[in-house]
Amino acid sequence: MVERLGVAVVGGGFMGGVHAEVLTADPRVDLRWVVDRDERVGTDLATRFGARVTTTLDEALADDTVRFVVVATPAATHEPIAAQVIAAGRNVLVEKPLVLSTGHARQLAAAAHERGVVLAHGGNFVYAPKFVRAHELAADREALGTVHSVRVAFRTSGPDTDWFRSKATAGGGALTDLGWHAVELCRWMLGKPAIRAVTACTRQLSAAGDVEDQGVVLIEFADGAIGQCDVSWACPGGEQLTVEVIGTEGLVTADLWQGMGVEAYTNTKFGAVWEPNQGWLRPEWEWIRNSGYVHQDRQVVDAVLDGRPMTHTPDDAVAVVETLEAAYRSAADGRKVEMNA
Amino acid sequence: MVERLGVAVVGGGFMGGVHAEVLTADPRVDLRWVVDRDERVGTDLATRFGARVTTTLDEALADDTVRFVVVATPAATHEPIAAQVIAAGRNVLVEKPLVLSTGHARQLAAAAHERGVVLAHGGNFVYAPKFVRAHELAADREALGTVHSVRVAFRTSGPDTDWFRSKATAGGGALTDLGWHAVELCRWMLGKPAIRAVTACTRQLSAAGDVEDQGVVLIEFADGAIGQCDVSWACPGGEQLTVEVIGTEGLVTADLWQGMGVEAYTNTKFGAVWEPNQGWLRPEWEWIRNSGYVHQDRQVVDAVLDGRPMTHTPDDAVAVVETLEAAYRSAADGRKVEMNA
Amino acid sequence: MVERLGVAVVGGGFMGGVHAEVLTADPRVDLRWVVDRDERVGTDLATRFGARVTTTLDEALADDTVRFVVVATPAATHEPIAAQVIAAGRNVLVEKPLVLSTGHARQLAAAAHERGVVLAHGGNFVYAPKFVRAHELAADREALGTVHSVRVAFRTSGPDTDWFRSKATAGGGALTDLGWHAVELCRWMLGKPAIRAVTACTRQLSAAGDVEDQGVVLIEFADGAIGQCDVSWACPGGEQLTVEVIGTEGLVTADLWQGMGVEAYTNTKFGAVWEPNQGWLRPEWEWIRNSGYVHQDRQVVDAVLDGRPMTHTPDDAVAVVETLEAAYRSAADGRKVEMNA
Amino acid sequence: MVERLGVAVVGGGFMGGVHAEVLTADPRVDLRWVVDRDERVGTDLATRFGARVTTTLDEALADDTVRFVVVATPAATHEPIAAQVIAAGRNVLVEKPLVLSTGHARQLAAAAHERGVVLAHGGNFVYAPKFVRAHELAADREALGTVHSVRVAFRTSGPDTDWFRSKATAGGGALTDLGWHAVELCRWMLGKPAIRAVTACTRQLSAAGDVEDQGVVLIEFADGAIGQCDVSWACPGGEQLTVEVIGTEGLVTADLWQGMGVEAYTNTKFGAVWEPNQGWLRPEWEWIRNSGYVHQDRQVVDAVLDGRPMTHTPDDAVAVVETLEAAYRSAADGRKVEMNA
Repeated sequence: MVERLGVAVVGGGFMGGVHAEVLTADPRVDLRWVVDRDERVGTDLATRFGARVTTTLDEALADDTVRFVVVATPAATHEPIAAQVIAAGRNVLVEKPLVLSTGHARQLAAAAHERGVVLAHGGNFVYAPKFVRAHELAADREALGTVHSVRVAFRTSGPDTDWFRSKATAGGGALTDLGWHAVELCRWMLGKPAIRAVTACTRQLSAAGDVEDQGVVLIEFADGAIGQCDVSWACPGGEQLTVEVIGTEGLVTADLWQGMGVEAYTNTKFGAVWEPNQGWLRPEWEWIRNSGYVHQDRQVVDAVLDGRPMTHTPDDAVAVVETLEAAYRSAADGRKVEMNA
Repeated sequence: MVERLGVAVVGGGFMGGVHAEVLTADPRVDLRWVVDRDERVGTDLATRFGARVTTTLDEALADDTVRFVVVATPAATHEPIAAQVIAAGRNVLVEKPLVLSTGHARQLAAAAHERGVVLAHGGNFVYAPKFVRAHELAADREALGTVHSVRVAFRTSGPDTDWFRSKATAGGGALTDLGWHAVELCRWMLGKPAIRAVTACTRQLSAAGDVEDQGVVLIEFADGAIGQCDVSWACPGGEQLTVEVIGTEGLVTADLWQGMGVEAYTNTKFGAVWEPNQGWLRPEWEWIRNSGYVHQDRQVVDAVLDGRPMTHTPDDAVAVVETLEAAYRSAADGRKVEMNA
Repeated sequence: MVERLGVAVVGGGFMGGVHAEVLTADPRVDLRWVVDRDERVGTDLATRFGARVTTTLDEALADDTVRFVVVATPAATHEPIAAQVIAAGRNVLVEKPLVLSTGHARQLAAAAHERGVVLAHGGNFVYAPKFVRAHELAADREALGTVHSVRVAFRTSGPDTDWFRSKATAGGGALTDLGWHAVELCRWMLGKPAIRAVTACTRQLSAAGDVEDQGVVLIEFADGAIGQCDVSWACPGGEQLTVEVIGTEGLVTADLWQGMGVEAYTNTKFGAVWEPNQGWLRPEWEWIRNSGYVHQDRQVVDAVLDGRPMTHTPDDAVAVVETLEAAYRSAADGRKVEMNA
Repeated sequence: MVERLGVAVVGGGFMGGVHAEVLTADPRVDLRWVVDRDERVGTDLATRFGARVTTTLDEALADDTVRFVVVATPAATHEPIAAQVIAAGRNVLVEKPLVLSTGHARQLAAAAHERGVVLAHGGNFVYAPKFVRAHELAADREALGTVHSVRVAFRTSGPDTDWFRSKATAGGGALTDLGWHAVELCRWMLGKPAIRAVTACTRQLSAAGDVEDQGVVLIEFADGAIGQCDVSWACPGGEQLTVEVIGTEGLVTADLWQGMGVEAYTNTKFGAVWEPNQGWLRPEWEWIRNSGYVHQDRQVVDAVLDGRPMTHTPDDAVAVVETLEAAYRSAADGRKVEMNA
């Protein structure tokens, strides 16, 4: 008997949709409400996932079965909404940026602590499997030595939605939007040391809006490491999100989209890497999933339980065996083997 | 109320363990039996996943709740075990190679058809998310034009287990082991056309065993396309598994381990790709999962339902906000900002 | 006092132009004649390089100072032209394919030997610096172990000139054009072992012409190694020319255009590689040239001897010093340094 | 009749050797003197290149045929030596860093201007052919739009020679050594705009010496672009030297060692690129040279003039023709062709 968790999503835009999709794939989750000031937007999302729709957070919070609220609204509204959710004793996930000032962040944290609810902030990339693997490697101090540099570059061609370019609704520009991830990734990769000093420069290139579309932030960490966050909304050619962690004996890089891999080097040896584990290497992550075992076995279970057709059938197996048989015959006889002959 | 599927895994070795791990992660699956001739091996695996152990398939098949059997034994034993499972009216997944002769493959397919059970064969890579994405792109004939070439290279440093190198137990060498995947991937990428002719050469390099450790297979497909399968157990430096599909207007490549990405090119335009979708591109796959949303939201649900600690807490959010605030101040004032000062 | 070599180029097309450009950059070479049946074509090239033009080879050969002839005409004409040049006692470089039959190749070789002249064939890629480096690494048998596989893929979007697609003028299609390079590179990378057997399949995709635009050739070498030549005129997205050499202990790959690098791996150690020289590595080639020293020092010599302006001047050095001074000041003071202030 | 340029190299260490090797390959250069305080070091180099040796610059400058002096000594000595050479009316190339202060740089520039001699500074990478190509692409403003970001990362495992780590002899650490190149490359890639402000942080990790081994410099250019220079002597795994130039419509990256290529992207079209020239592309550089034509034709000229053996002979051509003939026969007959049979 699985306990089910009643959920409300506030904000029916793109990110609200992502959370609705992810959460409803978990059999423990019961998505009950979509809250959006624009009833049409809310209805669209609610309909897709079989939830109810409302234009007021109050109505969703009045539902006792709602124990968890996802806040996916424009940044400037995060603080009051999250405060209301916490005050109502509900657990909350607030999309990044959690809030726009340190004061508000501390207040929310204290309020959540006092009410005994979970306050989570959306910084999805520190959960990304590839970066989790890079983080694991970066923590191998025998392989990396003294880690002195960390760098995150996050560059896109800019947001699709207008409110991102307005200080009033978004709080800031590329630094608030992408810089959140860059700062969090840098700090996490180093093991969350304290931050000693920050230097930054920003620039607004676009005529639209009133916020910066690019920025560079240098972070001096208490352990002496230097962090670089390089974010841009003015980079064409597809999203770039790369992480570099450099130590005196080794380094780790991970490229989320363009190169799509993890590379690492060590003068010594990585503990948690298969083959090779010395010199330069390209370690895998989520091996079982990336190899297709999860998808394959799920198809079989679906076929058995629900009678769903599989994408690969016994006829396919016959074709492969037949080809391999012919290949062995060809290799043995030194000639081409015609099939069906 | 979810229907649960009783499962037995035959063969407690490496691949039996992979299937046990994957299947038990599915809440619909009830792993009931591990079958292994070596009771110690079977017990180890059964204990890890809370299943019962037996040394005879008969005992597992006597359990009426077992509706699905995974066969993960050495290749030469696949045929009799699968035949017995099917005869007992159970659904079956047989690790690759399904069997060692076309005759046996056809017999099993016919038997499964007659008994109305699912006969699945383990060819995990045709379910691998990256290759599924490549397959989707390769099927975009507006983008690729006439597809005339497909190539799969699968190279490893050889199997860890001795039985792979014996013809008696494995049926063949690298061609049977890796060639299965290569042939299946080639055929699938082209849309499963008929095969007209096969030419191959093989070679045994290793002094151990009596099977080839490398082979090249040329496949002429009925649509005129040429397939190349290049497999080796004698390639150091980590596993290589790459797929190339080339058409007159575009191409798709996918590298599972070393480069870890998908690349594609088109003279026209890909239908199902975000940005950019013309010229050379590096399309993503499983975007929501790779971005960490699935892992993030699961952590939150776990935290709410089970009180598990999250890896990223409100303190982390405070640190990020504080850093961004300092960055904006630094950019505005043109000077370094010392923290906590 | 440098001896100068009188040269005639036969064929004023693209490749004739390449040789004219390369040869005239050598101060020892005196390009005297361009020979082309089409006087306008010949005149264009001759004018660019200060040579005389003629429509008959006889006229060029009548010039006693001509000691070396480059043949850059359509393939089917190579044999008679080269035979005439050799008969006239001149050294000759014939663009690839040298000739179209083994018989003709042997006749030319014998004739050149008898006359004591150099007979060179155009297979430029076996001189390409990147491949020369890969060849050097591939020859390091301590690093590679037993080399068992070599593969060359050479794929383009097809020739620009019509005569390439006609059997009468070109002799063959992609196999003759690109396959020449592929076969030569495979054989050279292995150290030129004898060839035991050849298997090939070809296909004509294009409606234009009467030759194959793609082919795959398997070569079984006398030392047991398997070679794969994969050539295509039907591959969009830019030229691909890659070489792979795989041994039991290590491997070398080189990508001439798309990835543009050399990669190598060894379980042991490469003798002629700097840092790192174990595991995976990316060795450099033509280090001094690629680093710019050759171009830099030539600019200085030109500036001194001929008064030519350099691209980088003392003002540039002042700007760099000024910036580094400011950087040190900024690092010391922990603040931004405004310039010219 | 070619005019020859008498040259003296001051400093017989590694860089003195590089310049000697490069300069003596130019037939216009006559290397007359190697000057080194350590007579043994000077003699070694002088002997290799057939020059005379002296321990005093005066002696070399007393030779009237010396018109050009290369200064390749430790950084702190550059200024007095260069000043003496210029005062003697000789042209000079000073290895980077030209000098250690803006004042000295201006004095040398003024002195050289007054005496009418060439003052060149060693910043070899702005002459590197790959970066010259990247620079050409970066200047294509139709392809790149407004260029707003430039970044150079130059990371090594540190200098081999002790004097680099001493402030007294080297003037500074990684910033002086590698930062010179990084600053010069950034500025050049943007078209040499003025620099408005500089922010930097540095760190000394190594216990050896008294200089920083790593630094990050942010440069704000007068045109609004932001430059990032990221240099390190504490990065294992082989040298990294990469350049990125990002504009609103396109971008260019060039990796000198690890990836060894140029990549570029444009929303529009690059003017000086072959195929493809839209979207993502990997443009070539020094095409004729990298393809081997220069090396091939030089081998032929050497063979004709000096009788030197070529690496590829008519026997090689016979082998290739024979293989292609067999391939055509195999493709036609659909069977393997045994050679010499």
